[in-house]
Amino acid sequence: MTTGDDTAGTEQSRDDDAYALDRKTVAAILYAVDIEDRDKLTELMEPLYAADIADLLEQINPYDRTRLIRLYDREFDGEILSELEEGVREEVIRVLSPDVLAEAVRDLDSDDVVDLLEDLDEPEQKAILGVLEDAERVAAQKALSYPENSAGRLMQREVVMAPEHWTVGQAIDFLRASDDLPEQFYHIILVDPRLKPISYVSLGKLMGTRREVPLKDIAEEDFHVIPIDQDEEDVAYAFNQYHLISAPVVDQDGRLVGVITIDDAMIVLDEEYEEDMLRLAGVSDDSSLSDSVATTSRRRLPWLAVNLISAICASLVISQFEAEIDQLVALAILMPIVASMGGNAGTQSLTVAVRALATRDLTGSNVARVIRRELMVGMLNGLCFAIVLGTVGMMWFASPMLGVVIGSALVVNMIIAGFAGTVVPVVLDRLGVDPALASGTFVTTTTDVMGFFIFLGLASVVLL
Amino acid sequence: MTTGDDTAGTEQSRDDDAYALDRKTVAAILYAVDIEDRDKLTELMEPLYAADIADLLEQINPYDRTRLIRLYDREFDGEILSELEEGVREEVIRVLSPDVLAEAVRDLDSDDVVDLLEDLDEPEQKAILGVLEDAERVAAQKALSYPENSAGRLMQREVVMAPEHWTVGQAIDFLRASDDLPEQFYHIILVDPRLKPISYVSLGKLMGTRREVPLKDIAEEDFHVIPIDQDEEDVAYAFNQYHLISAPVVDQDGRLVGVITIDDAMIVLDEEYEEDMLRLAGVSDDSSLSDSVATTSRRRLPWLAVNLISAICASLVISQFEAEIDQLVALAILMPIVASMGGNAGTQSLTVAVRALATRDLTGSNVARVIRRELMVGMLNGLCFAIVLGTVGMMWFASPMLGVVIGSALVVNMIIAGFAGTVVPVVLDRLGVDPALASGTFVTTTTDVMGFFIFLGLASVVLL
Repeated sequence: MTTGDDTAGTEQSRDDDAYALDRKTVAAILYAVDIEDRDKLTELMEPLYAADIADLLEQINPYDRTRLIRLYDREFDGEILSELEEGVREEVIRVLSPDVLAEAVRDLDSDDVVDLLEDLDEPEQKAILGVLEDAERVAAQKALSYPENSAGRLMQREVVMAPEHWTVGQAIDFLRASDDLPEQFYHIILVDPRLKPISYVSLGKLMGTRREVPLKDIAEEDFHVIPIDQDEEDVAYAFNQYHLISAPVVDQDGRLVGVITIDDAMIVLDEEYEEDMLRLAGVSDDSSLSDSVATTSRRRLPWLAVNLISAICASLVISQFEAEIDQLVALAILMPIVASMGGNAGTQSLTVAVRALATRDLTGSNVARVIRRELMVGMLNGLCFAIVLGTVGMMWFASPMLGVVIGSALVVNMIIAGFAGTVVPVVLDRLGVDPALASGTFVTTTTDVMGFFIFLGLASVVLL
Repeated sequence: MTTGDDTAGTEQSRDDDAYALDRKTVAAILYAVDIEDRDKLTELMEPLYAADIADLLEQINPYDRTRLIRLYDREFDGEILSELEEGVREEVIRVLSPDVLAEAVRDLDSDDVVDLLEDLDEPEQKAILGVLEDAERVAAQKALSYPENSAGRLMQREVVMAPEHWTVGQAIDFLRASDDLPEQFYHIILVDPRLKPISYVSLGKLMGTRREVPLKDIAEEDFHVIPIDQDEEDVAYAFNQYHLISAPVVDQDGRLVGVITIDDAMIVLDEEYEEDMLRLAGVSDDSSLSDSVATTSRRRLPWLAVNLISAICASLVISQFEAEIDQLVALAILMPIVASMGGNAGTQSLTVAVRALATRDLTGSNVARVIRRELMVGMLNGLCFAIVLGTVGMMWFASPMLGVVIGSALVVNMIIAGFAGTVVPVVLDRLGVDPALASGTFVTTTTDVMGFFIFLGLASVVLL
């Protein structure tokens, strides 16, 4: 029997070759593009899924990308467009010949069309809208009228509903007789006479139940309705938290207007994760590997600029102790350790807090307890390392008092780090600022400045 | 028409009150527990979903948690158990009275039972297995025989299949006549006579198609089969990449043995994200907000210890220039800036690379180009800040040469940071080590040590 211990029993490890683009395939494709062999290219691309072709296009350089698309021409599937990341997608749209683009766009579902349109500049939006049929165009424009990042943009308008009083038999007959069921649906939404969703029935359950049973009897217990103006982040959270496969969307009057399915929610969830992770490191969250040098540079600068200011502030603090450092150079040698340990501990607390805020695990109900815990952990770990570092300092510079000073400074800085690392993101979150975006600077500035100040200050008082 | 610009048009922002535990509700629940009012407690808990009750249990302190569970008693739903995070779940299992636990476990689906069991210690595993019916116990033991973190553990054994030559009519009749369809299923898997999956048909499409049409005609184009020993990380990647709702699992002989559904894949995906994010900050990935002070302290220590060693190494480098710092204290004041900027730039590159490796966007096909880009970006941003910092240094200490020295040191360190930040995770990944886990130390040690070395070294040569 395998236990929960990670080292017991056999354990799988990730196979990097599964699903990653095969380097040989990519090389063969680029070669076919080089020698302009359309048949070979089509043959190589044929077994690839749209998502993989999108990855391929993202990973090759812009010059090869253009040539590949021009050679591939009419084989270009609309689905590839919806899989491409924003930057590359804009580029590809400009490269595609107008009729191939038109064909590709007509392939797409309504929610993918909206997703495509919302990132484009106006002239390109007009071009694409012009290509759609009237009904599709109106639907797309309606979707674009909803606020960006809202449920209205994510949803598909095609929804399968049934009156709440129907039986299984009536529902099945209705579905079987229906001409235009959506491509993807997993539930029938039960509605009242005013089109308000009451509950939903999964197709699986429907299939396995006798005709005379009322739909209400097999309706799902848990029922979540998404308001049309809800932020997509909240939508994605709900899908994740409640394990939804699809959820009905209602307008301000509570009437059913569409449905959001799990695949769209997952894309949002994915974006949110990436956003948090990149923002914590100060990287603009619309960054991508295919950005040019200039774009990448521009996207990294702001954070670095803020950190430069922060570093200069720390240096200003150090300069207050110029005379002391001059007297005892050991201070200059040891001071980065206190600041650095504080920074690391602060980053640990910060990351935990930012993640917990995103998953709504850190709330008013436990924030006090978590802050208390972080203070205690800071003290505990601080003491632990204070002993180590104090001993090192003592032995290195043959000065017991120096050891005591650096040990004490470390404990204090690590307590501060634990505190700031939790309080700063919580406060920013309360103020409506994304904690992932701004906390890092506040926390590391605090630990650096305090680290230097406490160590050098204590040293100047005690030793000199 | 709203454009892709984030500032144009109205924009939604996250509503922290949506789906988060209402503080008043939590307070009322704790009060009911305090005065031991079971009816009130049941009334307050009734409208909450299992996932939210799990969150509640995770957020209150252990003492209240025990009292709440004891008071709630038989109302305790098995689903809550599967929603709880590992640490709290073990605690809850110990607190629940044996018959309530037995009842709760019998509520669960087979894959949730396995999920529950695999994290437990052996005596507790035995206790739970003892509670199950024979068929369920055997199924659970079979699942546990697969390697941890493999598809075999994730899958549910109940799968709906049909012979590949059937028509829609035959499939529908089969489903309608079936007694024991699974709780959740979205597709019918088409199999050949040797039980090898050929394709699958979504229930939605089935419902809308005439009886005489062969199933093969409405089968999905894209078809992904999961080998039973595949790592769950690869499974989750496939679900995300190809927007799967469910996927059949096959054994070594290619025979259909189960199916994995999107909700299980999403849990894995969520864990992977959290793992990467926490690991980058040096926090053990099984950490949680409900850990005690001692546990949290223990889980943060290793990374801090490694960083202490790294910081001491940097100090050793500084100490080589003790004489120079003694001569020119400005060096001590300015040196942390070079190291810190290098660390920040390195962390930016590192985070981008780790994320891209996880999403398989950084592969052999583009790694050379990305490294080149990082070097150029390091140089560009380095030059930019070198000018700023050089000017600051020059003016602050009235020394043009000092300005040049610090500017040059900064450029070099930022180029090194960009390089290390990308190369280190890629190399670790190739060696089969999780880049999120180990890269941080290597990269920041490099930028610290090199930062101090280059700046102080250059200064000692040029200025002194």
